[in-house]
Amino acid sequence: MAKPGVLTPQSTDFPRWYQDVVAKAELADNGPVRGTMVIRPTGYALWERMQRDLDDRIKEAGAENAYFPLFIPESYLRREAEHVEGFAPELAVVTHAGGKQLEEPLVVRPTSETIINEFFSKWVQSYRDLPLKVNNWANVVRWEMRPRLFLRTTEFLWQEGHTCHTTHDDARDHAREILHDVYGDFMTDVLAIPVVKGRKTPRERFAGAINTMTLEAMMRDGKALQMGTSHELGQNFAKAFDVQFTSDSGGREYAWQTSWGVSTRMVGGLIMCHGDDNGLRVPPRLAPVQVLVIVVKDGDGVGEAATRLVGELRAAGVRVKLDDRTDTPFGRRAVDAELKGIPIRLEVGPRDLADGKVTVARRIPGTKDPVALGAVVGEVTAALETDQQALYDEALARREANTTDVTTIDAAAAAAATGWARIPWATLGDAGEAKLAEQAVSVRCLTRPDGSVPDAGDEPDLLAWIGRAY
Amino acid sequence: MAKPGVLTPQSTDFPRWYQDVVAKAELADNGPVRGTMVIRPTGYALWERMQRDLDDRIKEAGAENAYFPLFIPESYLRREAEHVEGFAPELAVVTHAGGKQLEEPLVVRPTSETIINEFFSKWVQSYRDLPLKVNNWANVVRWEMRPRLFLRTTEFLWQEGHTCHTTHDDARDHAREILHDVYGDFMTDVLAIPVVKGRKTPRERFAGAINTMTLEAMMRDGKALQMGTSHELGQNFAKAFDVQFTSDSGGREYAWQTSWGVSTRMVGGLIMCHGDDNGLRVPPRLAPVQVLVIVVKDGDGVGEAATRLVGELRAAGVRVKLDDRTDTPFGRRAVDAELKGIPIRLEVGPRDLADGKVTVARRIPGTKDPVALGAVVGEVTAALETDQQALYDEALARREANTTDVTTIDAAAAAAATGWARIPWATLGDAGEAKLAEQAVSVRCLTRPDGSVPDAGDEPDLLAWIGRAY
Repeated sequence: MAKPGVLTPQSTDFPRWYQDVVAKAELADNGPVRGTMVIRPTGYALWERMQRDLDDRIKEAGAENAYFPLFIPESYLRREAEHVEGFAPELAVVTHAGGKQLEEPLVVRPTSETIINEFFSKWVQSYRDLPLKVNNWANVVRWEMRPRLFLRTTEFLWQEGHTCHTTHDDARDHAREILHDVYGDFMTDVLAIPVVKGRKTPRERFAGAINTMTLEAMMRDGKALQMGTSHELGQNFAKAFDVQFTSDSGGREYAWQTSWGVSTRMVGGLIMCHGDDNGLRVPPRLAPVQVLVIVVKDGDGVGEAATRLVGELRAAGVRVKLDDRTDTPFGRRAVDAELKGIPIRLEVGPRDLADGKVTVARRIPGTKDPVALGAVVGEVTAALETDQQALYDEALARREANTTDVTTIDAAAAAAATGWARIPWATLGDAGEAKLAEQAVSVRCLTRPDGSVPDAGDEPDLLAWIGRAY
Repeated sequence: MAKPGVLTPQSTDFPRWYQDVVAKAELADNGPVRGTMVIRPTGYALWERMQRDLDDRIKEAGAENAYFPLFIPESYLRREAEHVEGFAPELAVVTHAGGKQLEEPLVVRPTSETIINEFFSKWVQSYRDLPLKVNNWANVVRWEMRPRLFLRTTEFLWQEGHTCHTTHDDARDHAREILHDVYGDFMTDVLAIPVVKGRKTPRERFAGAINTMTLEAMMRDGKALQMGTSHELGQNFAKAFDVQFTSDSGGREYAWQTSWGVSTRMVGGLIMCHGDDNGLRVPPRLAPVQVLVIVVKDGDGVGEAATRLVGELRAAGVRVKLDDRTDTPFGRRAVDAELKGIPIRLEVGPRDLADGKVTVARRIPGTKDPVALGAVVGEVTAALETDQQALYDEALARREANTTDVTTIDAAAAAAATGWARIPWATLGDAGEAKLAEQAVSVRCLTRPDGSVPDAGDEPDLLAWIGRAY
């Protein structure tokens, strides 16, 4: 459908295709400060839909939203040794404010474990105050040397959840609930992105955590994208910030903690997992606009028919938008809808209408068929369901076709040139991981042979998932 | 209801009362960096409800959400002379990032006119692109010398709308639509806060605007709070950032612009307009929890009755929460609900229940009555409506009782000691305004005699509304 040449084909140059689609679908622009991003309305609408859905799930998991400050005293970061070591190279620092040099420089938050624990230490007194679960929707800043829109930006938008529990087990269970029931289900059911859930190796662990769990998705170029993480923090931050509670037996204990986050990076994952040479393909459950009703040209009751269809679809619970800008050529409007990945276009024109029909163009399978007016609502609602599932199935089949079981490190590196490899962790080990890292290949995560998430990094028979990554 | 001594009485020390209620109702804490704020879940839930409601209204007015970067190159601010002069003393500046000194310092956005216009200049080409309306939900930073939680914080949360229009008239109409239909209706109908809408004097105008319109509310101590503003920017920023379009006659013209915003400051306004000596009083339409069903103590089917009532109320569309923490004394839970301003408590105890009744405690009128089980849903839904209106009526009556018409500057200053004064603008003038300013009394806005918003500052017969302000 799209005019040849609108986008660089994926097979020619995938990174260029990505840049093209972000620009042509008007998703985002580069900001004036290196690595920053302007999220344009079309891109922001995707993020807003993600936020709304995730926010409900996060609340369902018992967390309440709160807001913690952007500026963190530099000294806070130094209290947890691994944490500061991990983040120091990426910090942006405010040294002047209100016309004066500050006594203590302020860090623009790269993540909020430190400042949030400062407040947990005031709020947590007794086991009755636990579990305590807060979530913060916020912008964070990490100075990026190789920025890429949505995927790796100096400033990004995210949610960060932070929780305190009385026991190690309770914290462990919560970190897994977030991984599976909040993030995993959302990515699978709404984003239509199959994810491998696993445990990070010590090398890839969050700075300050005792365990990082991740959700990894395969992009259409075979590379991996880390879509979200859920961390067990143990008592590391609780000890650094003195978050103690009186237990039911009267003793003083340090809280067990978790933190977890997903970000605007998911928008990049959505583009690279589902997009094709004609543009984005947005899964119907996520789509801000599920159906675009296009008036092809005016006259012969076309406008009225289009308006009636909009009303009928809206009444059926479909997110629908009318495009009656007939002063813009129809072809340009259709290409724009393709680029933006709107799941269904209903093209209402005088010729079809004379036959009592409209054309239903489905973005995901790429079909275009005339449908009788009376059957439109039924066909459209069924197609939205079918196409949601088709997008997921396609992504899963692609991942499976591009994942190879191997037994040597060289074979893993070779497989990572075009997809993923799975290799016994016992065969790879820290040394093998370091060797792969020299070729920019990493262990995305460890799973058990049945695909479940291990409780410890030294369980027997673990598999390492290997790939290049964004 | 509240134990004596929980809050400092308003009549004893209003600022102290405010601090007390913010702390005791767990709305917010001071952050570690001077002037920053941690918004706790109870406070954030109020802001979230405000956001959701306003977001719908803003979209209804034709704006789309987008996101613009936190960091602005310092040079951008200098392009509009009045703008930089107004904001320079309040800026926080990033000088180091990624371990290095930056070539150009970065300003943490105090507002985004400059960076947004940089992008408008790329996006706006033709009159067909207009009107262009974007809205950004974001955090902004203005260094504060005298910070106060919610009211005046170094970092605050807000929305800022920015629009481009082909004509001066169209921009003027849009700024008024936001003032009246978005902000005004929301404050009146949802927050139950009566607002005076008017035009700012040149002295109080936004730095870079040709006209600032405001919504002013009277707090319970007689002081004014600016609840929101809507600005006409004329072509000032369009000229500074070269935002030009090709008109339908083919010429090149600068866009006419508006910007408008409301912030977390509204939470402070809500507290100070409606709160009393027992705590906050939240208007039912805003309240995150409208009805708290409290199990007074266990036994005799109390838990079951409470759960049934929760279900019935939820089915009737009421936002309801169950409090069955019977290990915490009932009195403490009731005081907590009063402090947090939950509009209605349903107290379910064995004694009332034996008579087929529960106690309905209404926070706004302060009544407490037994109601038959079968009548609860009807009584509660009616009370929510009645109490919403009562809160508004009370605030309006208080404002009217504390606003005095005067004819001399001295009388205006005297009236401002306890409330507001209205004085002919022709009598006051710039000189009178400067004289009042020496006593920390300001012109909140100018209106016509009939209360409507003037189109120009030099219309005859304008009235100046005078008061002390937060």
